[in-house]
Amino acid sequence: VTVPFNIEKLPGLDTIAAHLEGLEETIISKLIDRAQFAQNLVVYKPGQSGFEGAGDISLFELRLRRVEQMDAEFGRFCVPEERPCFKDLPPSKRTTPPVPGVLAIEDFDCINMSEQIVAAYKSLIPQICALGDDGHYGSSTEHDVFAVQAIGRRVHFGALYVAESKYVSNRATYDALIDARDSVSIERSLTRPEVEERILQRVAQKVDHLQSQINPKVRRRIPAQAVLDFYRAHVIPLTKRGETAYLLHRRREAGK
Amino acid sequence: VTVPFNIEKLPGLDTIAAHLEGLEETIISKLIDRAQFAQNLVVYKPGQSGFEGAGDISLFELRLRRVEQMDAEFGRFCVPEERPCFKDLPPSKRTTPPVPGVLAIEDFDCINMSEQIVAAYKSLIPQICALGDDGHYGSSTEHDVFAVQAIGRRVHFGALYVAESKYVSNRATYDALIDARDSVSIERSLTRPEVEERILQRVAQKVDHLQSQINPKVRRRIPAQAVLDFYRAHVIPLTKRGETAYLLHRRREAGK
Repeated sequence: VTVPFNIEKLPGLDTIAAHLEGLEETIISKLIDRAQFAQNLVVYKPGQSGFEGAGDISLFELRLRRVEQMDAEFGRFCVPEERPCFKDLPPSKRTTPPVPGVLAIEDFDCINMSEQIVAAYKSLIPQICALGDDGHYGSSTEHDVFAVQAIGRRVHFGALYVAESKYVSNRATYDALIDARDSVSIERSLTRPEVEERILQRVAQKVDHLQSQINPKVRRRIPAQAVLDFYRAHVIPLTKRGETAYLLHRRREAGK
Repeated sequence: VTVPFNIEKLPGLDTIAAHLEGLEETIISKLIDRAQFAQNLVVYKPGQSGFEGAGDISLFELRLRRVEQMDAEFGRFCVPEERPCFKDLPPSKRTTPPVPGVLAIEDFDCINMSEQIVAAYKSLIPQICALGDDGHYGSSTEHDVFAVQAIGRRVHFGALYVAESKYVSNRATYDALIDARDSVSIERSLTRPEVEERILQRVAQKVDHLQSQINPKVRRRIPAQAVLDFYRAHVIPLTKRGETAYLLHRRREAGK
């Protein structure tokens, strides 16, 4: 999406919401691609990677770690909404664009939902993939990583930019809640049931539309309800939990 | 796609064609994802990677090489239709499923179209991405690699399995053409204009359908014609060139 976020002016909430909306097709198409392979649950089992010297890690976690190590050198995690799952990653070797100055936080990893995203994603697999094992472990984990990263971008982007946008439009209220460390009230203030319901219906409708003309003999279809449930149970709540974390860690002006 | 190709029995041409058809949505959705970023042509310029110690390589080639090095250890290139672009890759560290015995060839890299695929892919970028530069170089190259690998899988899968299938259904004719090293006649014998036209129309129709309900304010649309032209000018011809290479390198029975 071509919205230029690398600027010193915070985009409006509409623009931020539009960016999140634009990420939905990306997430859905990655889930559909993953579902072209069977569940292959062995790839999530620790110690069964079949990878020389990998020890007690699963093939999926090993792949994710290796991708994150590579991505770190390419500067991925210099981008606020790209948060890694693993620690001890190498530093960036690439000249990356400046971090948007609109975010008032020192350490973006104060808002890191990656571990919960991975756990939630694993629970989605049996809902979208065919039961059993087709031997395509490499392809399965490759697509797992694509999907987890796309979901992570959505959650963290929302967490950072939605929270900052809501903060600047209502400083006094949020300052009081932040001073009181009242995370329950903060999260409640970030909740708009009618907006969430609209997102859920739109996501489900996209899942159906993107698959409405496939040839079911050559491509597996995933149920819209599974993706809707995943958004309802995980994507939206994790985004809000990230927003709350952002506000609680938000840098305050000097003297405040 | 769940068709089990890891078997000792060659699937019918219909099943092979169905697998190729199932890869179309994957290729198209990866191209659409790439097009959410600007052309960013600097990522294809040698020596301008901005990556410490990378030397004269472009950011795209560097990313592709690093992904291939990682993928090699995960056993990707043990799969016949996964052909790398770079040489000198590390050996697989993973236990991978046996190579299908139905392919009568020793060295799968006799059929490696990756260099031509990359060149063709680069020529497609200005047709699908917005002019200019949005600074998202990391994301652009990441999606470039996803797309190039998906296209490569389609070309090489077709090259190997379609060729073998046509060979076994017409051994005498192909043996004569192979003995004569007559690559022009081989390629002609593999050409079915009406089948190709049907693929082109289907691909174009999928590109339109997959984007028919997007919100153009939040997501960029790619032209169906550009993907159709890409299939016509590159995907189909490279698949046929790969089929011809397969037949010319096909292992012959002892004494023949």
